[in-house]
Amino acid sequence: MNYGQIFDDAIGRLHSEGRYRVFIDILRNKGAFPNARCFAGHNGPKPITVWCSNDYLAMGQHPKVIEAMEEALHDVGAGSGGTRNIGGNTHYHVQLEAELADLHGKEGALLFTSGYVSNDATLSTLAKLLPGCVIFSDELNHASMIAGIRNSGCRKRVFRHNDLAHLEELLATEDRDTPKLIAFESVYSMDGDVAPIHAICDLAEKYNALTYIDEVHAVGMYGARGGGITERDEAAHRIDIIEGTLGKAFGVMGGYIAADQRVIDCIRSYAPGFIFTTSLSPVLAAGVLAAVRHLKQSNVEREGQQAHAAMLKAMLTERGLPVMPSTTHIVPLMVGDPVRAKKISDILLAEYGVYVQPINFPTVPRGTERLRFTPGPSHTEAMMIDLADALVEIWDRLELDLAHAA
Amino acid sequence: MNYGQIFDDAIGRLHSEGRYRVFIDILRNKGAFPNARCFAGHNGPKPITVWCSNDYLAMGQHPKVIEAMEEALHDVGAGSGGTRNIGGNTHYHVQLEAELADLHGKEGALLFTSGYVSNDATLSTLAKLLPGCVIFSDELNHASMIAGIRNSGCRKRVFRHNDLAHLEELLATEDRDTPKLIAFESVYSMDGDVAPIHAICDLAEKYNALTYIDEVHAVGMYGARGGGITERDEAAHRIDIIEGTLGKAFGVMGGYIAADQRVIDCIRSYAPGFIFTTSLSPVLAAGVLAAVRHLKQSNVEREGQQAHAAMLKAMLTERGLPVMPSTTHIVPLMVGDPVRAKKISDILLAEYGVYVQPINFPTVPRGTERLRFTPGPSHTEAMMIDLADALVEIWDRLELDLAHAA
Repeated sequence: MNYGQIFDDAIGRLHSEGRYRVFIDILRNKGAFPNARCFAGHNGPKPITVWCSNDYLAMGQHPKVIEAMEEALHDVGAGSGGTRNIGGNTHYHVQLEAELADLHGKEGALLFTSGYVSNDATLSTLAKLLPGCVIFSDELNHASMIAGIRNSGCRKRVFRHNDLAHLEELLATEDRDTPKLIAFESVYSMDGDVAPIHAICDLAEKYNALTYIDEVHAVGMYGARGGGITERDEAAHRIDIIEGTLGKAFGVMGGYIAADQRVIDCIRSYAPGFIFTTSLSPVLAAGVLAAVRHLKQSNVEREGQQAHAAMLKAMLTERGLPVMPSTTHIVPLMVGDPVRAKKISDILLAEYGVYVQPINFPTVPRGTERLRFTPGPSHTEAMMIDLADALVEIWDRLELDLAHAA
Repeated sequence: MNYGQIFDDAIGRLHSEGRYRVFIDILRNKGAFPNARCFAGHNGPKPITVWCSNDYLAMGQHPKVIEAMEEALHDVGAGSGGTRNIGGNTHYHVQLEAELADLHGKEGALLFTSGYVSNDATLSTLAKLLPGCVIFSDELNHASMIAGIRNSGCRKRVFRHNDLAHLEELLATEDRDTPKLIAFESVYSMDGDVAPIHAICDLAEKYNALTYIDEVHAVGMYGARGGGITERDEAAHRIDIIEGTLGKAFGVMGGYIAADQRVIDCIRSYAPGFIFTTSLSPVLAAGVLAAVRHLKQSNVEREGQQAHAAMLKAMLTERGLPVMPSTTHIVPLMVGDPVRAKKISDILLAEYGVYVQPINFPTVPRGTERLRFTPGPSHTEAMMIDLADALVEIWDRLELDLAHAA
């Protein structure tokens, strides 16, 4: 039994498939995002433009967020010092949960240390509380939902992506008295498409299933107050549990669920991933509180993001680049090979100061490796033109197919 | 199928067992910790002394930590904006991992969003990489280790707490070529006792097992540089994976592992709980970096903590209160019943302004409910006298047994 060899072999497989990941070492420039500094190699920091951040609305540099965090830091200090039950329940946590419950029109909300943990802890605990529960899961659900469902130990039935007929087919085969949960996302972040929420809720009502929606790539960005696609589509009241993140459009870190008080109370009381962990730093909670409050009132950031996403899609399409058919703020460009995707990304960073990470397996299926751009309100038209022109030059240099020539 | 009823019943069970948890709503006073404000009810904030914080060394209010966080907040903003692979790998993360690797004398380190996630992600991934792996787990291991082991899907063998003979008995029954991992803690946080690390390593060598130690209640607090019990006992080089937290003695939030580079590279590349989550806020990483660096050089905090823990244990023992036999900084007082434990805690908070959370199931086994005090360098002798006298008064009022009268 040579443990070292086993670990070396596992790493070797990544290299041989061309998907060994190199983390790009950066610092963002607060107040000037998407500008940042890159520390690759030993030549000191080099200026770059970030095109792959999930700080979608640049709230991570918003003066209200920064100010709230600074104030909390000086008022209460760095960390919470405990779990929510043992010394780590601060007034910021209490206020933030009330704010998030209000955002989604729910009775309560519950904070977690991340969106990943929200999904894992909630789904695994829910299914354990419901004896014999079957979970119906969209095939493109995020890894954290898959983890929660697997960790629940319950039976899982996977339906084809956004395929209502297939979902109904699966629901119909189960006994009416079997507890059921339909778990899906609103915005699928690697493709940029959206779930048919009302139609899924219709099926849930017909077959008496609970509904669980992951809105991490939508909260803050859709709906008049940033309540996500469920707000935009006026469907929030039809969903039992809405899950969101504090680390993307809200610009900070953490995750949450919003639901009926009894559901919140159950997860709060039974989920090990909630109970046995130090709560969010009050500094983060204070920052998020400012971000959520701001985005409830302000549409400027949402409108800027939508306008820039449309502009970038148009520019790339115009140049014949293989833009995938996203209906949201996400702009994915299909490459279809991990080695080429990394090559394009390397050239962009080294020669153009453009930072976009190649997306490879296991984040997307093999053979669908891509570049994924996330234009936000702070990306300028000039930056987009530079990006689009750079991509055309690289596509040409590497002799890649353009969409219209394919 | 009435889902609401199922959830209500689950909550009802907690009430009927007397272990429904009420989170105490507080704000700590930076610069004056363990002083804090309590927001119970609507009478506005009331001053309290916190006796159950895991900000063990009060680093959450250390000027170096606060300053580093403020600087990072203004330099790079609130959040990281992405996963470690996609835009969320900042220079703070890179530096902090180097600092933590150095702390434990290991080749590398890897940050997670919490200690819980460190254990869950690492243990579940390790065991999956080692085909047929069997994990030997101390029966008092933390919930997060139990989650990781269960989520790995591998075979688990539980040995009696710190029982070397039992561990060897279990190891001896397995085939020599079966991959093995011994998972244990250094300081068990609810009892305050310590594992026989060298003896466990002897067994690991004899039976060719990997070793995994959870040092979350020890890092920062033991060893000349705060490397934990493995540093104090000069055993770090014998342990394959050391896991720690950034949310207790280091005062902020987050978790990590330190190990050989090949192990770090495997977890970094294969663990969904690491890959698919927004990285720690750079503000937190900057604060931890300052805390770790400070505690590598300064012994004042460690000495203050040990002196105060010894003083409190002596005061409580002198008064005949049922102090449990802890050999560390943790001072647990046995109550043995959830309703009484909550009652004592409620009186302490309402009448004495003393905040100590009752510890009940599932954090400790039923029938061993307790109060758990964590004196630190900032607790004064006067605070301890007040606490000890209050406990005697309450013990008397509730007609509880004193230790010498038992």
